[in-house]
Amino acid sequence: MDLNADLGEGFGAWRLGDDDALLSVVTSANVACGFHAGDASTMRRVCAGAASSGVSVGAQVGYRDLAGFGRRRIEYAHDELRDEIVYQVGALSLLAASEGTSVRYVKPHGALYNVAAVDDGQASAVVDAVVAAGRLPVLCQPGSRLAVLAAGAGLRVVAEGFADRGYLASGRLVARSAPGALITSTEAVCARVVQLATTGTLVAVTGETIEVPVESICLHGDTPGAVALAHAVRAALASAGVRVAPFTSAT
Amino acid sequence: MDLNADLGEGFGAWRLGDDDALLSVVTSANVACGFHAGDASTMRRVCAGAASSGVSVGAQVGYRDLAGFGRRRIEYAHDELRDEIVYQVGALSLLAASEGTSVRYVKPHGALYNVAAVDDGQASAVVDAVVAAGRLPVLCQPGSRLAVLAAGAGLRVVAEGFADRGYLASGRLVARSAPGALITSTEAVCARVVQLATTGTLVAVTGETIEVPVESICLHGDTPGAVALAHAVRAALASAGVRVAPFTSAT
Amino acid sequence: MDLNADLGEGFGAWRLGDDDALLSVVTSANVACGFHAGDASTMRRVCAGAASSGVSVGAQVGYRDLAGFGRRRIEYAHDELRDEIVYQVGALSLLAASEGTSVRYVKPHGALYNVAAVDDGQASAVVDAVVAAGRLPVLCQPGSRLAVLAAGAGLRVVAEGFADRGYLASGRLVARSAPGALITSTEAVCARVVQLATTGTLVAVTGETIEVPVESICLHGDTPGAVALAHAVRAALASAGVRVAPFTSAT
Amino acid sequence: MDLNADLGEGFGAWRLGDDDALLSVVTSANVACGFHAGDASTMRRVCAGAASSGVSVGAQVGYRDLAGFGRRRIEYAHDELRDEIVYQVGALSLLAASEGTSVRYVKPHGALYNVAAVDDGQASAVVDAVVAAGRLPVLCQPGSRLAVLAAGAGLRVVAEGFADRGYLASGRLVARSAPGALITSTEAVCARVVQLATTGTLVAVTGETIEVPVESICLHGDTPGAVALAHAVRAALASAGVRVAPFTSAT
Repeated sequence: MDLNADLGEGFGAWRLGDDDALLSVVTSANVACGFHAGDASTMRRVCAGAASSGVSVGAQVGYRDLAGFGRRRIEYAHDELRDEIVYQVGALSLLAASEGTSVRYVKPHGALYNVAAVDDGQASAVVDAVVAAGRLPVLCQPGSRLAVLAAGAGLRVVAEGFADRGYLASGRLVARSAPGALITSTEAVCARVVQLATTGTLVAVTGETIEVPVESICLHGDTPGAVALAHAVRAALASAGVRVAPFTSAT
Repeated sequence: MDLNADLGEGFGAWRLGDDDALLSVVTSANVACGFHAGDASTMRRVCAGAASSGVSVGAQVGYRDLAGFGRRRIEYAHDELRDEIVYQVGALSLLAASEGTSVRYVKPHGALYNVAAVDDGQASAVVDAVVAAGRLPVLCQPGSRLAVLAAGAGLRVVAEGFADRGYLASGRLVARSAPGALITSTEAVCARVVQLATTGTLVAVTGETIEVPVESICLHGDTPGAVALAHAVRAALASAGVRVAPFTSAT
Repeated sequence: MDLNADLGEGFGAWRLGDDDALLSVVTSANVACGFHAGDASTMRRVCAGAASSGVSVGAQVGYRDLAGFGRRRIEYAHDELRDEIVYQVGALSLLAASEGTSVRYVKPHGALYNVAAVDDGQASAVVDAVVAAGRLPVLCQPGSRLAVLAAGAGLRVVAEGFADRGYLASGRLVARSAPGALITSTEAVCARVVQLATTGTLVAVTGETIEVPVESICLHGDTPGAVALAHAVRAALASAGVRVAPFTSAT
Repeated sequence: MDLNADLGEGFGAWRLGDDDALLSVVTSANVACGFHAGDASTMRRVCAGAASSGVSVGAQVGYRDLAGFGRRRIEYAHDELRDEIVYQVGALSLLAASEGTSVRYVKPHGALYNVAAVDDGQASAVVDAVVAAGRLPVLCQPGSRLAVLAAGAGLRVVAEGFADRGYLASGRLVARSAPGALITSTEAVCARVVQLATTGTLVAVTGETIEVPVESICLHGDTPGAVALAHAVRAALASAGVRVAPFTSAT
């Protein structure tokens, strides 16, 4: 099982999350590429840390929206979004190469992640960008439009699950505003992660056991207690005998 | 002899210069990389045009300063400047690759060009970036600190000359504010270009014939009449029997 | 009748439209405020020109989106949009004051104009901003949600019409992609302007004469021939005996 | 004696310093205006908090440099810098007005503060901006070029001192890289503040007692322990019988 988290989300003098601490626990680092967060030196530093920690580097691509941290939906012409994603992946790729590693996958950030999950236009812009960028694996939610279109284009789709989010029986996430959206107890989160990793199932908010076949679990890095939770999750997986490793080592 | 000019210097809705017209006359396109000018779609379009025209693509890297068009000196920490240059080269590289070409050289833009010509700190940041970015050739002024440090690092230095600028006997340019700084007559510019290309010499403002051994001549793309002048220069070189071709084909 | 156009839409080294020429023909200048276009010096220069030409200055407020020129819809939290509009109006107000004039009205730009015409959320953010900014008049399309909410808040609503756009019988504009959307003949545009100004009516694409009571006519400044068309419109109004003056002089 | 600190230095999702805590201890809030830090909603929130706490709002104006947090020297044309400062003051002014307060002074930030202290060009741009913006008081270092030029222009100059910085016998600060530059003990800082406030003197690093007549003491808000130190300073002043109040109430 792979553990991924967002890293390098500071910008200039501003910091967000604890990159160094997260590098000691995740196996895949989604590195912000400068459009919604991340500056060149932060990107390089995270790549250097990932290289020395055996962590896989992914391009966390987002809208051009520093003020909104990439969390606001923006209408984009298809080519413009595709080209901005290629630009971001390229920038990270050369910084990664300068630190002896490489970009192993692409994961959309924030509003782009959410929009590409349901909107064929933005999903296809992501897919076209990834194809242009050398056919990297795409890390996304199973069943999303992005997952469907990426698979259709022959890309490797790596499905991710959310340990701290409630699921509907349909396999979709409970909306953040609804009851059961967030799971805050460390024990509960760890139990779910182990169930996900060992059986490929989860218990939905309505009580059904549903299949959620994932190759990676997304940990949040920017909330209080995030690092401690990440360590607890990793320890729980180890106790359950689950090997934790980057999904990209499987290729 | 190579002819280079700045291309792709628009941003979003704003245009600057006539990229299509310039692609029909230059042999090397210095493509703005998004920090002082240039957006991802413009970069891709120029790369596509360059690929189909047999024009060599270079990374025209600059300060992070859209409002100042990269023309204002900015103090930079060494690593920050180096990393931002690697970022820019990487972004252009992947866009170029997606259009079937590649980045063949690096040329600093505006204030970075001027500062790196005289300041070892910024010159070494450029050199370190180019080394990290895969040891591309550097297009710059002969005798500049950048040229000296780049050569010292084992990089290929491609010297450029300015057909429309007056030279001092020392080989430096006449300051823009001084008499003789700009040569505006098409005939005079063409004659100088032919002399440069066939003899490696120029006549300085003080009358001496000086050696200016260059592999490339810089044409300005954003002034009125720029395209017509560029065509006249190219025709003059052809009449003089000078082969016009990208310098990178020589490697 | 008032004639308004967008001015000051350059940014740094980039120009868009001919501000000086437009200042000699319009009576109200919608000055871009730095978020989608416009830099501080351009804003000041347009204010100076407007002051000396007797042209009324309005704040052309937009999304924070230089790369998209404010033409892409962006989701905004209500307060964030309101505050960014107040920010823009304040910035222009002090620059205008430093040139001896003042901001007389607010007009949303691009996607914000279009979204606020149909979306109560963004329309109310504009209204709340204008109330916070001192209850300036709002220049917008009659019947739009922005017009309705602004009137409801007790603001003065100044209705504008488009001389070069086709109208549906409902009073709405023909979509840009549909036949009859754009009127390109100078004669036709002038005739429509005179009809609008003297009778408050227009002929819809489907042939009906409809009432379009407007206090201002929007001229486009960034298209080829824009300035010539603007002069033709103004001359046609003069020939028809229509007084052309800023709407704000009526208060 | 006035106590000032930088507030509102976050941007979008990024926070820096604890604005709410500082509002309970300072008497003057230098509010970042969006160019080096600060977004419109943060600016409004700080103004609201200042208004309800009786804290005076000042415009903390800076270079257009989010990536560098305004800490890198940038060459500016005089008018461009002047206009950008007017823009920033105007933006904050209207947000302040919308929260029932107003901008009472201007203080340059970071590299602009340092450059305007020694460079007549940038100092005069600040002065010209402040004159254009309504002749507000300028908060700066006594003896700086900015202080001299502002006084020459008839502006009120409010001198500030630094409780946690060592002083040379000349009244200038010890360079950050030199021994004695920073005073880290809470007791020492408090003792210096009381001496400054009650006698207008300080002990220089070389042992001399020097005159440092200041109306305001600058507290740093973005370092660990900053809030605790600020409270200690305020308590020390209270114990010494010094009245702590905004300098602007003295006018």
